[in-house]
Amino acid sequence: MDLPSVFTRYRPAITQGLREALTESDLPLYGMQRYHLGWQDEHGKPLEANSGKAVRPALCLFACEAVSGQWRTALPAAIAVELIHNFSLVHDDIQDGDTHRRHRATVWYLWGHSHGVNAGDAMNILGNLAMFGGDGAALPPQTALTASRILTKACADMIEGQVLDLSFEQRAAVRVDDYLVMISKKTGALLAASLHMGAAIGTREERTTAAMLEFGKGLGLLFQVRDDMLGVWGKSEVTGKSASNDIHRRKKSLPVVHALEHAKGPSRDRLQTIYKSDTQLTDADLADVLTIFTEVGSARYCEELAQQTASASLRHIETIEIAPQAKRECAEMTRFLLEREY
Amino acid sequence: MDLPSVFTRYRPAITQGLREALTESDLPLYGMQRYHLGWQDEHGKPLEANSGKAVRPALCLFACEAVSGQWRTALPAAIAVELIHNFSLVHDDIQDGDTHRRHRATVWYLWGHSHGVNAGDAMNILGNLAMFGGDGAALPPQTALTASRILTKACADMIEGQVLDLSFEQRAAVRVDDYLVMISKKTGALLAASLHMGAAIGTREERTTAAMLEFGKGLGLLFQVRDDMLGVWGKSEVTGKSASNDIHRRKKSLPVVHALEHAKGPSRDRLQTIYKSDTQLTDADLADVLTIFTEVGSARYCEELAQQTASASLRHIETIEIAPQAKRECAEMTRFLLEREY
Repeated sequence: MDLPSVFTRYRPAITQGLREALTESDLPLYGMQRYHLGWQDEHGKPLEANSGKAVRPALCLFACEAVSGQWRTALPAAIAVELIHNFSLVHDDIQDGDTHRRHRATVWYLWGHSHGVNAGDAMNILGNLAMFGGDGAALPPQTALTASRILTKACADMIEGQVLDLSFEQRAAVRVDDYLVMISKKTGALLAASLHMGAAIGTREERTTAAMLEFGKGLGLLFQVRDDMLGVWGKSEVTGKSASNDIHRRKKSLPVVHALEHAKGPSRDRLQTIYKSDTQLTDADLADVLTIFTEVGSARYCEELAQQTASASLRHIETIEIAPQAKRECAEMTRFLLEREY
Repeated sequence: MDLPSVFTRYRPAITQGLREALTESDLPLYGMQRYHLGWQDEHGKPLEANSGKAVRPALCLFACEAVSGQWRTALPAAIAVELIHNFSLVHDDIQDGDTHRRHRATVWYLWGHSHGVNAGDAMNILGNLAMFGGDGAALPPQTALTASRILTKACADMIEGQVLDLSFEQRAAVRVDDYLVMISKKTGALLAASLHMGAAIGTREERTTAAMLEFGKGLGLLFQVRDDMLGVWGKSEVTGKSASNDIHRRKKSLPVVHALEHAKGPSRDRLQTIYKSDTQLTDADLADVLTIFTEVGSARYCEELAQQTASASLRHIETIEIAPQAKRECAEMTRFLLEREY
């Protein structure tokens, strides 16, 4: 299935905006950020690497266009949210000890923890500057403040989500409900804020901005649920990750959280034993985990949750007055997130 | 000598503002921040520990009062800068591997690096929220944006300073000029921004706000130079730190940077050898370092730089039209920073 045009059509403007935000300072602090974004290698040599999907800024610009017919006004917010998302990735990599991202060494892995912390901090700050710091700041003051407030609150939620996620890693049992709260913060908050900001920049109609926020919350949940499904049942030739990657990493994602809550007797014991151990998973372990997922219907549960979330999200959009084309694109994005294989 | 009243008279309002910014959320994320600020112990039990001197918010409120006759309007900016200063401390402690601050275990030392990163990130974000996030946000939009822009740019400078500082630790020779640039960013930026924001909130008179900014840059430099002097020649019974603490830690502060640049022959070799080694300093090493400082006149150099900085800072204030009382207080603060023993 094709990538909806929402995710590609604003790309040149987003790239240009990001490059402007990261002025060509020679300081190593900015070099690390350009490295993270895939624009240069670790020695500063220009590069065209994968900078990520830039989903958040695209959603932000889309929402503004949907409610107002134009999207350029929302560019400061779009650039801000992408920088802040990337700040969170740089710090996440430190926290998770991940040595690689998008097939390249992570910032901390190359420059050490201290500079990794600095690079992330700086991207956070540049995100704020992108919103209101430019000398020719495009947003009127009241609008800039409204957008900043939305983004900053979402950012606080995101960190809360990160704290919950880390605490789950140390807990034996995490309930599905707790897990859903965590991902609604960790992943959902910025995605929802992207649509919310874009809408709030384009219109003051509160019913419309509130609907975009709710739609965004749904998309965020959907995005993560699908991600969790792909981490277990995704086809490695499409996802680019090894099969059952999340099981091998013992990531407490939705399928296993669901299975741990619903498995009984020996299945439950077996699953707990496997997830408590820290030796490398054997083929037998993996087969057992997948069998237990089937027993308790974890795949079906995830699938149904994704379906329901998709429908509920779209209902928020149906009631507001935006162009029919924009509504069609909301449906298209939702279907894409529901069915994507990578 | 007495602490100038500027540093104490706003204290109750600052404390109250900080407590409001850190809402009584039960989430561990907020508990870590309250712990860092000395309001609770690691189990959440209320505490009255040392929260630090809160110099920056005091300077911010003072500047607003000096130019407009009232200081409460600047409270959002004062709270913001104090939270952002504390965010930088939480991350600095991780980067420097410091296990204790203000005689208490540091956040990362209690909760680990990952949560230390999160707690710092959250304080940064709460700082932004304090400026413009409150539902009854006191600042008019244009003023809030102006203040946010000043603070955010200063914050970027501060991180740049931190990066420079870390890079100096790995370099054999750091020139005095480079060192002064580094501290003007790492320490000076937020201190200068505090006065600059306070003034910009109180008046739109550009000559006045620019003068307060320059005065603040001077105070920032003075503050750090004096700090560096106390780290070497301070009396331990007054500073609360061990004598020659910065020499023992081989901290590349101004006295040694100056001495490494100016010592010659065997003195230079000896100093380099001592600062390159990583075994614990002997009494003989310490005595040699202090002798070399005397030989090359490092103390006199620091003293003169501090004196000149103090005079230059005050000249910026002399030319602007603010209340005579405020000018006297600027002189009082400057003298205090110049002569303080702790």
